[in-house]
Amino acid sequence: MDQFNQQQIGALSAFVEPDRFSTGQSNREMHTKDISPHQGKLPAGIIWPLTTEETSAILVYTYAQGIPVTPWGAGTSTEGNPLPVMGGLVMDMTRMDRIIAIRPADLQADVQPGVFRKTLNKNAARAGLFFPPDPGADATIGGMIANNASGVQTIKYGATKDYVMRLVVVLPDGRVIHTGGKAHKSSSGYDLTRLFVGSEGTLGVVTEATLKLTGIPVVHLAATVTFETLEAASKTVAVLMGSGLEPAALELLTPELIALMNREKSLGIEEKPSLFCEFHGISEAALKETADLAQELCRDGGAVTFKTGVTEKERRELWRARHEAWETIHRAFPGRETIIVDAAVPISDYPEMVVFSQRQLDEKKALGFVFGHAGDGNLHVVMVGDPSDEREWTALEEINDTIVHRAVELGGTCTGEHGIGIGKRKFMQLEHGEGYDLMKQIKSTIDPKGLMNPGKMFL
Amino acid sequence: MDQFNQQQIGALSAFVEPDRFSTGQSNREMHTKDISPHQGKLPAGIIWPLTTEETSAILVYTYAQGIPVTPWGAGTSTEGNPLPVMGGLVMDMTRMDRIIAIRPADLQADVQPGVFRKTLNKNAARAGLFFPPDPGADATIGGMIANNASGVQTIKYGATKDYVMRLVVVLPDGRVIHTGGKAHKSSSGYDLTRLFVGSEGTLGVVTEATLKLTGIPVVHLAATVTFETLEAASKTVAVLMGSGLEPAALELLTPELIALMNREKSLGIEEKPSLFCEFHGISEAALKETADLAQELCRDGGAVTFKTGVTEKERRELWRARHEAWETIHRAFPGRETIIVDAAVPISDYPEMVVFSQRQLDEKKALGFVFGHAGDGNLHVVMVGDPSDEREWTALEEINDTIVHRAVELGGTCTGEHGIGIGKRKFMQLEHGEGYDLMKQIKSTIDPKGLMNPGKMFL
Ligand SMILES: Cc1cc2nc3c(=O)[nH]c(=O)nc-3n(C[C@H](O)[C@H](O)[C@H](O)COP(=O)(O)OP(=O)(O)OC[C@H]3O[C@@H](n4cnc5c(N)ncnc54)[C@H](O)[C@@H]3O)c2cc1C
Ligand SMILES: Cc1cc2nc3c(=O)[nH]c(=O)nc-3n(C[C@H](O)[C@H](O)[C@H](O)COP(=O)(O)OP(=O)(O)OC[C@H]3O[C@@H](n4cnc5c(N)ncnc54)[C@H](O)[C@@H]3O)c2cc1C
Repeated sequence: MDQFNQQQIGALSAFVEPDRFSTGQSNREMHTKDISPHQGKLPAGIIWPLTTEETSAILVYTYAQGIPVTPWGAGTSTEGNPLPVMGGLVMDMTRMDRIIAIRPADLQADVQPGVFRKTLNKNAARAGLFFPPDPGADATIGGMIANNASGVQTIKYGATKDYVMRLVVVLPDGRVIHTGGKAHKSSSGYDLTRLFVGSEGTLGVVTEATLKLTGIPVVHLAATVTFETLEAASKTVAVLMGSGLEPAALELLTPELIALMNREKSLGIEEKPSLFCEFHGISEAALKETADLAQELCRDGGAVTFKTGVTEKERRELWRARHEAWETIHRAFPGRETIIVDAAVPISDYPEMVVFSQRQLDEKKALGFVFGHAGDGNLHVVMVGDPSDEREWTALEEINDTIVHRAVELGGTCTGEHGIGIGKRKFMQLEHGEGYDLMKQIKSTIDPKGLMNPGKMFL
Repeated sequence: MDQFNQQQIGALSAFVEPDRFSTGQSNREMHTKDISPHQGKLPAGIIWPLTTEETSAILVYTYAQGIPVTPWGAGTSTEGNPLPVMGGLVMDMTRMDRIIAIRPADLQADVQPGVFRKTLNKNAARAGLFFPPDPGADATIGGMIANNASGVQTIKYGATKDYVMRLVVVLPDGRVIHTGGKAHKSSSGYDLTRLFVGSEGTLGVVTEATLKLTGIPVVHLAATVTFETLEAASKTVAVLMGSGLEPAALELLTPELIALMNREKSLGIEEKPSLFCEFHGISEAALKETADLAQELCRDGGAVTFKTGVTEKERRELWRARHEAWETIHRAFPGRETIIVDAAVPISDYPEMVVFSQRQLDEKKALGFVFGHAGDGNLHVVMVGDPSDEREWTALEEINDTIVHRAVELGGTCTGEHGIGIGKRKFMQLEHGEGYDLMKQIKSTIDPKGLMNPGKMFL
């Protein structure tokens, strides 16, 4: 039995209009799966708040009653981050989806957490601006803040953390706090904003955010570069990153992944170890200069081909294909689940990590695809298997463990962008040591009853 | 009487070699003044640790004995940040000054906290790299981390917070933790690194840091732009910031300050409301394009003159003069002290703040100089007076209060870069509301006895 009962949950219907609280089976089931193999426990109810005040009133109540609360964005996480593992209440933020203001003169936007990033970008584009962090999925701003999401353009533009200036957060007990501010700089007290960014909903619910925006780059140039070996390709990454050319994207792809993408998407890309690059600039002339220098550096690094001159349509397709790598893999092996390695290391160690990871797959004859946000030293291995086949699944878990251990030895992390959720809790002690204890201390200071998104981040 | 006695302090001599512990009067006195008008209480002793282990052993002891400890860098703070207001022990970090490694391939450096930023930059330059945050003074890395220092180039390159990847911190009770890592990205747990950056030594002592470095820009171009009114000058700031031209520096100066600089430094600059700009690029041609566009935008904004083409020597002198603005003011009025306004607001509100602040000085007939890191919306007013003249000093304090209140109303902050220290504690409640309580909660979680840099940040 849970500590709370159905009557306590039912009372929540008094807090919002009827269509914003549900104990219906299908709604509850929909909130037990993200894209990971993890499974949440059926929550007792779902609530969709509209305002900070409502969110606060709900949390005052759940806190008093001892009801676990799990915030929910778009549910596109890869580690079980938004799954209600103790049941309780799921707080779905997607109806709190107002763009409060886009303020072009300040290069800022004020948004509610349920705004989707593509919606924000469509609106910001009218002012010539965009919000750069770009996880493959169309996530909510709240989910991106909670996971500190990033993507292919992070090497130039930064991660979500670099764009959050100010938050309104409702703490587990219903207290409302404002963090940060709208000024570009501040040295005023502890950086509470950054404490909440990346906290995966374990410290409170974000109900409003002020985000930095950036000017949409005037011109783009994409290039695909092939190499004979994965090592040569990955070694060129550090050279390009140190060159001052400031690539806007620098992705590594293995022949195996490209072959799959070609098969599923009829792309017709050469099946060689490759770098997909992009450069942004203020004029065609400046970009041409950049591309020439990049080509020279790639050739020195052993590149076989360096292809630019793709059309805008081809460029978009290339990046769509890259963004959809996970879906493509998933679709190619129906009925299977995936484990996604998300390690990141200093870029000088990236070649070693890439070769090491590919070798793990080869030696263990595991089905998996190596790729990554190479310019950030962020490595993905999407491994495919059947969780009910214990031997196979355990082997994949072991590969994941081996790769993460090596990454941490090199001063890196178990997760460059996806967050800890359920799946990576086992690495927290390894990666953070005594720092992990301090995180637990902070968690229990802010959430002494352990009711906010319980069962995440901490083992 | 203090809770601790001289014998407890004396026992610290057993922790380090004789020349690294002192109870001598002159050493103690030297550690009671930064550049603010505040005065520390004479500490009972000074200790200079060399290693993390030593720092930890000392803090285990002081924690058990209830001795207050105040970390000390170069003592260049403007708000009393490193002053031992309860006496106790000052922990001077300047002998822990080893550059452990500069790792060009990773664009990173590992340093001890007592390294001075100019020393780091001299060494990093050999690899074509630099650490961009540039407060006017030659501060230590530890002091810059603790204050989240920044400077004229922050608009392009970011503040200290943007360059700290990993810390070793000794907590008030002597526990040693590692935060962050060497990978460019991470979404692993709470961002402890950022909790310590800007915490002004109130949560622990930084004993090692991994910093991001950046490539030294290939070409520079400086421009001085004059306007008829302060308003026109400050309105052009937002235009330049939104232009995509990415100025590397964008400083506002008033005629009064320029007149003083001319007098003290024989600079011969036109005494008009002015913007000092700088642009960085990969080629002269690209910069020329940038400068032309900047000139056009400035003319549209009412600029009277737009002067580029200064020599490298002139460029350096211009920035040195700007960096030394505070010293220049201080020297011009010997025997006086200064109150430094450090408010920051969204850039669209910057013109209002500038005009508002100058009007405060004019109306109250106060002696003060308005300038600032305009591209960041960061406004300085250096006010000159005599703290023993209560009427005069109170009037200056009131101007400070009025400006900060206006900045906070506009969504801004009481301190863009100098930190809270002693002087700005009175604004914490105003600026952070309930967030201030959360900061206090965090402080007492990590430092339950309140021994680390007591009397700072919190009233
Ligand atoms: C195909 C695919 C590709 C992807 N590629 C990337 C990638 O390249 N980079 C990357 O970083 N991620 C990637 N992801 C992962 C995912 O998209 C991101 O982690 C995203 O940030 C999740 O946002 P969401 O809105 O789906 O949040 P959810 O998954 O619903 O929730 C994420 C976390 O945020 C919490 N949360 C949600 N809203 C709030 C709120 N308002 N307040 C407090 N906590 C809240 C939840 O409790 C949970 O812990 C990918 C996912 C998919 C499916
Ligand atoms: C002329 C002049 C111009 C300036 N201009 C600027 C400017 O443009 N921008 C700007 O940001 N600042 C500026 N400053 C202020 C000052 O230089 C910065 O705040 C600087 O970061 C202080 O560094 P410091 O080494 O002198 O530290 P200190 O003043 O000695 O100490 C600063 C704080 O850090 C703590 N501390 C020191 N070392 C450690 C450690 N290892 N671990 C934990 N805590 C520690 C201290 O307790 C204190 O709270 C200026 C100062 C002067 C004199």
